[in-house]
Amino acid sequence: MQDYALHDINAATMQVASGGYGLIEDAAVVVAGGKIAWVGKRADQPAQFAGLAIHKLGGRLVTPALIDCHTHIVYGGNRAREFEMRLNGASYEEVARAGGGIASTVSATRSESQAELLKKALVKADALIAQGVAVIEVKSGYGLDRDSELKMLRVARQIAQHRPVRVKTTFLGAHAVPKGMNPDAYIDDICIPTLEAAHAEGLVDAVDGFCEGIAFDTAQIERVFQKAQALGLPVKLHSDQLSNIGGTPLAARYGALSVDHVEYADEMGVEAMAAAGSVAVILPGAFYTIHETQKPPIAAFRKHNVPMAVATDWNPGSSPLGSLLLAMNMGCTLFALTPAEALAGTTSNAARALGLIDCGMIAAGMRADLAVWDVEEPGELSYGIGINPLHARIYGGQHELA
Amino acid sequence: MQDYALHDINAATMQVASGGYGLIEDAAVVVAGGKIAWVGKRADQPAQFAGLAIHKLGGRLVTPALIDCHTHIVYGGNRAREFEMRLNGASYEEVARAGGGIASTVSATRSESQAELLKKALVKADALIAQGVAVIEVKSGYGLDRDSELKMLRVARQIAQHRPVRVKTTFLGAHAVPKGMNPDAYIDDICIPTLEAAHAEGLVDAVDGFCEGIAFDTAQIERVFQKAQALGLPVKLHSDQLSNIGGTPLAARYGALSVDHVEYADEMGVEAMAAAGSVAVILPGAFYTIHETQKPPIAAFRKHNVPMAVATDWNPGSSPLGSLLLAMNMGCTLFALTPAEALAGTTSNAARALGLIDCGMIAAGMRADLAVWDVEEPGELSYGIGINPLHARIYGGQHELA
Ligand SMILES: [Zn+2]
Ligand SMILES: [Zn+2]
Repeated sequence: MQDYALHDINAATMQVASGGYGLIEDAAVVVAGGKIAWVGKRADQPAQFAGLAIHKLGGRLVTPALIDCHTHIVYGGNRAREFEMRLNGASYEEVARAGGGIASTVSATRSESQAELLKKALVKADALIAQGVAVIEVKSGYGLDRDSELKMLRVARQIAQHRPVRVKTTFLGAHAVPKGMNPDAYIDDICIPTLEAAHAEGLVDAVDGFCEGIAFDTAQIERVFQKAQALGLPVKLHSDQLSNIGGTPLAARYGALSVDHVEYADEMGVEAMAAAGSVAVILPGAFYTIHETQKPPIAAFRKHNVPMAVATDWNPGSSPLGSLLLAMNMGCTLFALTPAEALAGTTSNAARALGLIDCGMIAAGMRADLAVWDVEEPGELSYGIGINPLHARIYGGQHELA
Repeated sequence: MQDYALHDINAATMQVASGGYGLIEDAAVVVAGGKIAWVGKRADQPAQFAGLAIHKLGGRLVTPALIDCHTHIVYGGNRAREFEMRLNGASYEEVARAGGGIASTVSATRSESQAELLKKALVKADALIAQGVAVIEVKSGYGLDRDSELKMLRVARQIAQHRPVRVKTTFLGAHAVPKGMNPDAYIDDICIPTLEAAHAEGLVDAVDGFCEGIAFDTAQIERVFQKAQALGLPVKLHSDQLSNIGGTPLAARYGALSVDHVEYADEMGVEAMAAAGSVAVILPGAFYTIHETQKPPIAAFRKHNVPMAVATDWNPGSSPLGSLLLAMNMGCTLFALTPAEALAGTTSNAARALGLIDCGMIAAGMRADLAVWDVEEPGELSYGIGINPLHARIYGGQHELA
């Protein structure tokens, strides 16, 4: 791959200590060996790069490529009918009797083949890639038995073999209690052994759970986290989405990479996250879809310097949201994030939520994962609703620029 | 152009008396001379069409092409900075002092050339076309002087010369009071003479106004409507968006094609719309963006059989929403429209809101404006958030199908 420099650009480097875009006007980005070799004012570009090929980008904005740090894009079935039934007045009981709810996704995910699941997941990955995404986190959690959880994680890994994107896998066996099972028995007899098997197969980058009245309590989650710790795997947690049952301090105690949703997090939880260095992953698509009214404590996150990420939570039930840019707009519109916080949330802080230190900023030594946008200023990325101004994506230095 | 039949499809014809999709499973659609010659069960396809070329569409869903019946996509400038300022805590006064608000769009629209405005409008039209849209309504209203209003309408007409899409133009001189002007003087001395000039140039398909405390009162709007009536032009009205000052009954009295926004419409207004046959155009993008809490009276529209349309209201201030599919999802999620109502809102009822009788349904004699979707059922179009499952668009029979 040829080395090159990007000129005639403004660069939102996201190299920021506190707020803003780290914006460099009339910047140059030098790419060598698939990495960023230099970034700065074009006028300051070192003489050693003078002979490189130059791509002039017409004054466009360059940002780090986006990172969707919380998705559930591997699943079977289709929940559109359930959405329609509810809007036609069906009760939750009627939906459940018609085979709706998460149980329907579990049953479809179990019955569909790996090839079928992959085909559907690639459509979703393509939609994210088309918005400048270079890293997608993918969770298991619709299998809820050993073979199906492993199948989901294998599909997640396969995405990166079929598309120019990195996938970080998260084991979410503790997502829901399988129908008719005792939750403790599920955690001990299925979830934890499955985690061990998945780890042995190299399928797990992190371990997650759903800590909620309708899912698992802190004691059950803690047993999963203990196993993760024993295996040397980082943890994260769906916590404080619908109520506060103590998941956030637990996650912080295990040094969680991130605590996700966090609408009902209290100040004590926020302080624990700050002390642990956990990222708050804000998921406005679920808030919007389930008509939640409790907003995450953005002011407390700011006060305690808890980094905030923004993700799609793309899933078939509570967040069929296929656009990370729209998640950014929703973060601003619904939670009053600033556009700079929203962009940090899908770049630098999203990388941190995944434990990645080689991307999410435009800085020397980072992977050359970049997005080139047809916008005049970075705030436009959050301002537009359902608009995709991507001009080009650069992935590990590879691109299709003129 | 060769005639052909579409096979291996399900067709949501939207030929419906009350609700539903008019769905035909395993349907055939015969296209001849750019129009729909026949639609029905494939097994019933008349023998006379047996020799036609056949496009097999793999079980995909075919709907009428979408219609965005309320947009403001011709404008100059960029309001992203204002969005960002507000989220960084600036007051409306500070935004105004920094040149923000509608005045900034008016000033940019006045100063930009017709070519510049067209270039920007085509980007927006392309985004809509990529979602299966075949008709776009475009309003003036950021010129607020004779030359600039005419320039906007000429740009709107030009869109249809550069892209395979039909444009319906709406004169919205009564959109805002130009800075420092008396509203009555503006209506009588500028708005109405400009309407006459625009009509003389063939630039006006309908006449609109903004009836609101911050814009024009009913007496001022009525003078514009009287001129429209004298010129033989249909009317529509932005009414009851922020408050109820009587615009809806006025619009109904003038037989309005549509009354738009209507969050604050009362039962009397709804009854007047029903009697006049006016369509209620639901604009959830603006509701979402301005954090409105008063929802339009959907139950009353249903009770009185007022047809509902759904549109983007794409504009730089209160609704920078560039996706008609997302407007459908927002209609369902924010206002509890059913997915079938949302699809009628962007097809059959949107056509009616524009006075079009040749599109918006799959029926013999209609234009062959069709959308082919990678979905299993029509509810999926509203269920997905920020997802575009368009497989192909057919415009006046023209297509790029394999
Ligand atoms: Zn989740
Ligand atoms: Zn409007």
